[in-house]
Amino acid sequence: MPDFAAPLQRLIDEFRRLPGIGQKSAQRLAFHVLRTHRDNAVNFAAALLDVKDKLGICVQCNNISDAELCPYCRDPGRDASQICVVEEVHNVLPIETTRSFNGLYHILHGSISPLRGIGPEQLKIKGLLDRIAQGETKEIILATNPTVEGEATAVYLSRLLKPLGVKCMRIAMGLPVGSDLEFADEVTMLKSLENRREM
Amino acid sequence: MPDFAAPLQRLIDEFRRLPGIGQKSAQRLAFHVLRTHRDNAVNFAAALLDVKDKLGICVQCNNISDAELCPYCRDPGRDASQICVVEEVHNVLPIETTRSFNGLYHILHGSISPLRGIGPEQLKIKGLLDRIAQGETKEIILATNPTVEGEATAVYLSRLLKPLGVKCMRIAMGLPVGSDLEFADEVTMLKSLENRREM
Repeated sequence: MPDFAAPLQRLIDEFRRLPGIGQKSAQRLAFHVLRTHRDNAVNFAAALLDVKDKLGICVQCNNISDAELCPYCRDPGRDASQICVVEEVHNVLPIETTRSFNGLYHILHGSISPLRGIGPEQLKIKGLLDRIAQGETKEIILATNPTVEGEATAVYLSRLLKPLGVKCMRIAMGLPVGSDLEFADEVTMLKSLENRREM
Repeated sequence: MPDFAAPLQRLIDEFRRLPGIGQKSAQRLAFHVLRTHRDNAVNFAAALLDVKDKLGICVQCNNISDAELCPYCRDPGRDASQICVVEEVHNVLPIETTRSFNGLYHILHGSISPLRGIGPEQLKIKGLLDRIAQGETKEIILATNPTVEGEATAVYLSRLLKPLGVKCMRIAMGLPVGSDLEFADEVTMLKSLENRREM
């Protein structure tokens, strides 16, 4: 005998497909939906579909957007001479949270990874070259992840972009603020020493 | 400027309404939906609505069910002389998982809690009395939670049901298997001593 009525089991299965949600969590979430008001389920279902149906890609920076240009690209108050290059859409928020960057973004939608068969041609690099060709860009901040793939992507891009006469900067690697030297891995410690600055 | 496009923000908000899902998890889940195929979102949305639209309450035991009777109540192979009384629908599964109980269930949909203003009249007790009145029931297993509320509910039910001539049993409280005496709280330890059995 199945443990749950079919519709409930189906919702549990749907929750389980989400990253980081196991069997127990999926049951708890499905039971929550079961107990909650029908309107909540309707709104949730509509939100799921809207994300697929109402969102597209910004034609300039490849950010997700509900219009042709994303809010950053259409904001005249942002500095178009700086472009911060990130791997994924969700990498924009941590940078915005610092409130220290007022330029534009460019999202690559991936990073160079020969092991997974992803080369530069799979990334959205052409659009970046087109933007630079328009002549307004002075500085590119390469904010790809501090991983092997992110580093490879940053190196590739800097070699590609420097000849075009734009300044290519890489975000700093070092010890996270609030951490302890004791827990730093050796590569981070090495980077932290290499990137030391005068006080 | 909002951090996310409106439809994405709405989905993040919907995920945040779920129990145990915070801001970061909600973002991660919403981005997962954004990356996944549209069919997955459609199925998820349909599953959410089906749970509200296709599930009802078993007329006999108050379990959730997609038919008039739940699978347990309509299974002729189950022993109708035993009824296991639990607080909530999701309490059935842990009992089923033991594969040691082949009787029927009765779900109270709550427990007596004067602090939260929940008295016996708010629980689905009348249906249980009706079932016992049909004369087939020999044993009631009170499997309400081992909490103050669950215990109060069990005591109330045993006083109500004993005069009707049915055997009222309470599930055992004691040390969880695989645990250590060192970590047992005093009430559990007390119950474990009280409920000791000859070997």
